[in-house]
Amino acid sequence: MRLTPRELLILFAAGAAGGLIGDAANVNAGITRYLSDSGPVIWRSPIWFPILVGTATASVGVVRMLLGPVRRATDPRIAVGAGASAIGVYAVTSLVDNDETAAIALVTGLGVLVACAFADRPGLICGLIAMAVGPLVEIAIVQLDLSEYTSPNDGLFGVGPTLPGLYLSFGVAAARITEVLVARRT
Amino acid sequence: MRLTPRELLILFAAGAAGGLIGDAANVNAGITRYLSDSGPVIWRSPIWFPILVGTATASVGVVRMLLGPVRRATDPRIAVGAGASAIGVYAVTSLVDNDETAAIALVTGLGVLVACAFADRPGLICGLIAMAVGPLVEIAIVQLDLSEYTSPNDGLFGVGPTLPGLYLSFGVAAARITEVLVARRT
Amino acid sequence: MRLTPRELLILFAAGAAGGLIGDAANVNAGITRYLSDSGPVIWRSPIWFPILVGTATASVGVVRMLLGPVRRATDPRIAVGAGASAIGVYAVTSLVDNDETAAIALVTGLGVLVACAFADRPGLICGLIAMAVGPLVEIAIVQLDLSEYTSPNDGLFGVGPTLPGLYLSFGVAAARITEVLVARRT
Repeated sequence: MRLTPRELLILFAAGAAGGLIGDAANVNAGITRYLSDSGPVIWRSPIWFPILVGTATASVGVVRMLLGPVRRATDPRIAVGAGASAIGVYAVTSLVDNDETAAIALVTGLGVLVACAFADRPGLICGLIAMAVGPLVEIAIVQLDLSEYTSPNDGLFGVGPTLPGLYLSFGVAAARITEVLVARRT
Repeated sequence: MRLTPRELLILFAAGAAGGLIGDAANVNAGITRYLSDSGPVIWRSPIWFPILVGTATASVGVVRMLLGPVRRATDPRIAVGAGASAIGVYAVTSLVDNDETAAIALVTGLGVLVACAFADRPGLICGLIAMAVGPLVEIAIVQLDLSEYTSPNDGLFGVGPTLPGLYLSFGVAAARITEVLVARRT
Repeated sequence: MRLTPRELLILFAAGAAGGLIGDAANVNAGITRYLSDSGPVIWRSPIWFPILVGTATASVGVVRMLLGPVRRATDPRIAVGAGASAIGVYAVTSLVDNDETAAIALVTGLGVLVACAFADRPGLICGLIAMAVGPLVEIAIVQLDLSEYTSPNDGLFGVGPTLPGLYLSFGVAAARITEVLVARRT
């Protein structure tokens, strides 16, 4: 089954909006800093940031559809709750000192908890893919001198060591939102 | 269906107790400060504060009953969990720097998550009413010089910008506790 | 019904691992400090610490089995989610200033929420036993000059006032993991 253009757009918009909120929190907290003259800025992010997160969200949706049929739950509270969880975890990464064991344990624990609450097997695979790919993309962005994580928030090859937990919650949430969107179709 | 005096008293007591805990945390953290000679003090709050929160909780219960029949769940864990969630969100407002994007995103996200976990449609309406009325009442209290939010925790017309998220969780929790109380009757 | 050696070992290993993570966070945050020459150190803890927590976890499992038959849920997400919750609460005790009302309210509220989410009646009894015995054992450890809680994190007879909430979540999680292990047997 394929996602419709409307569903892809909803996923893109949800991801772009969530990314803008979380990134504004990160920038305000001084965790991350944009370096280059990246063109127009939306709120606290360069224009390419919400586009990247929105595209990533829609991509998780496409991957989720490739991994198998979706559960029948159509309750919008599931999708909204999954999204609010991911934004909450994102906000927590701004509120803790990222290189502390406690911060890494909390954010990773929250990522695992979001997976236990929202993921079936394909959703968990989406979360694990995001957990691997997301930090790698961020490391590449830092290597390209587009942004940087400030010390001591850069302990994972130049990016935040809380990123795997955050991306786990992101991938799971994007997959769960996809499932609800598709289940509501029929 | 009407709430019995006993149910109203339970709601009042739960709200007053939760309000005292959350307010002691806010006062200890220096987020809020009482200004006037407000008569007798209980713990860290003037006597009118727990009365106000208790009355607000019972009022949410009355509104919930006007909005439609309640779900049949009688498990006390639902009611206790809803209450613990609201007190947890209240405590988080004391632990974060309230004018930061991350703090607002976290508390608002937690409020949405509490609503997704505990609210049906009437419960959500209770939460949204509390989300609007609660901050307005607090703004009035600040205008009356009874209390103040300290800088930088006063970014929402003199009160904390995390209040909408907090009151959303409060309204949803009060409605859910009401439902369990009424469902256990029969 | 008795736990098999394999199940006891899983409980011991889960408790020892979780204890090492949470204790490293506590030591790094300066909440606790080891005083004596306690023999070999693993990560940030003396060797006896993970052994103690692992034994405590297996003991909760034994107590849970004495208290009655287990629920039939076999989904590993329940056990993993319970464990992640307890580790998350442990991490929160490192991130908050433990003698503040807000910290105590948050951790205790989280403990209650974990109990509401995961405990049946026997599981709640396990949580309450852990809530009483855990802090007492820690007070004894401090009295024996093996470790200390730093000021102002020592407000409960020399140990942290967030410990009851933490141990409540620990006991409930250990009981829930036990239930899933046993339910998966058959």
